[in-house]
Amino acid sequence: MKRSLGARTLLYPTPVLVIGTWDTAGKPNLMAAAWGGICCSQPPCVAVAVRRNRHTYAGLIEHGAFTVSVTSEALAAEADFTGTVSGAEVDKFAAAGLTPVESEIVDAPWPDEFPMVLECTLRHTVEIGVHTQFVGEIMDIKVEESLLDEKGVPDLERLQPIFYDPGRGGYWTTGRWLADAYSLGRRFSDNSDQPAGRSR
Amino acid sequence: MKRSLGARTLLYPTPVLVIGTWDTAGKPNLMAAAWGGICCSQPPCVAVAVRRNRHTYAGLIEHGAFTVSVTSEALAAEADFTGTVSGAEVDKFAAAGLTPVESEIVDAPWPDEFPMVLECTLRHTVEIGVHTQFVGEIMDIKVEESLLDEKGVPDLERLQPIFYDPGRGGYWTTGRWLADAYSLGRRFSDNSDQPAGRSR
Repeated sequence: MKRSLGARTLLYPTPVLVIGTWDTAGKPNLMAAAWGGICCSQPPCVAVAVRRNRHTYAGLIEHGAFTVSVTSEALAAEADFTGTVSGAEVDKFAAAGLTPVESEIVDAPWPDEFPMVLECTLRHTVEIGVHTQFVGEIMDIKVEESLLDEKGVPDLERLQPIFYDPGRGGYWTTGRWLADAYSLGRRFSDNSDQPAGRSR
Repeated sequence: MKRSLGARTLLYPTPVLVIGTWDTAGKPNLMAAAWGGICCSQPPCVAVAVRRNRHTYAGLIEHGAFTVSVTSEALAAEADFTGTVSGAEVDKFAAAGLTPVESEIVDAPWPDEFPMVLECTLRHTVEIGVHTQFVGEIMDIKVEESLLDEKGVPDLERLQPIFYDPGRGGYWTTGRWLADAYSLGRRFSDNSDQPAGRSR
């Protein structure tokens, strides 16, 4: 039996994205965001939602760019901190002991200590409600070499990404590898006339 | 040292969302999507990205509504299956043994066996590239009562949501509770003049 919880923002998982921008004074800034995700395969794009009263907002628009860093378990406290103080009053890089790296391909910085970063050029700005959604084209992704597997993609047992729980208000770790996609559900294809494969 | 992986769609975690719609013939359909996430707090909204050639596409627009079901570990195979065949040729509910429930508040169905569903009214359609992003206002969320904690929100140790790994192409389970948000990073506030709290 399902219970109605009303109109609210619960979803599992939501990511712990750390948005890097230059502010309007040219100072590097960071902001944690759980409202976001990939939104297009070609061109590769990621969306992040930012409230208009956030310090990140004006700088992101002025520079037309942002970075998105993925949070590992070891950097959970740093990411959390960037969501609890305002860049208008605090240099979050300095306070959290993080090193700003200037992207060579988009006009935004990222924290060197974070294991993985998406460098994004702003493509769409969508006014939804209290949040504005910024859609960025992913121009490059950079990942610590030691976290890559033999195929050159991140090994999540090493990257150890965390996710955000908007109901309880906290963070969970990555568990165990479950299964390959596009094959796990193959047994149900026996009940249909169409062989399994990527769907249309 | 970071290595450049190029312009591509890697992010961790990405969710395993199962989109429920009526198709243009009035048949219930399902589609797994990892490109999506919450995009606004007020009104509460969720975004999902769908390619134009998907069977889900026309029905979602015609009915102006969709549901988003959260995938638990126990339903990983069913979710995966909905991403591997086309609703134009297969009744995915029937093939996977799922029961369509007709929402009473939006014009879309959901699979009763899934533990949690967001009922959404289409508010924005954003053309990004090969994917169209549909922004839905969350009108209600329904969750199996047995999965709720004493505060009435999902207990993830019971819900056991999974997430998608777009690099390796597969699914991971939820790990362990790490920490409360908005307090974990408090130690860095000693380095700033501003007390911790929700940031602006």
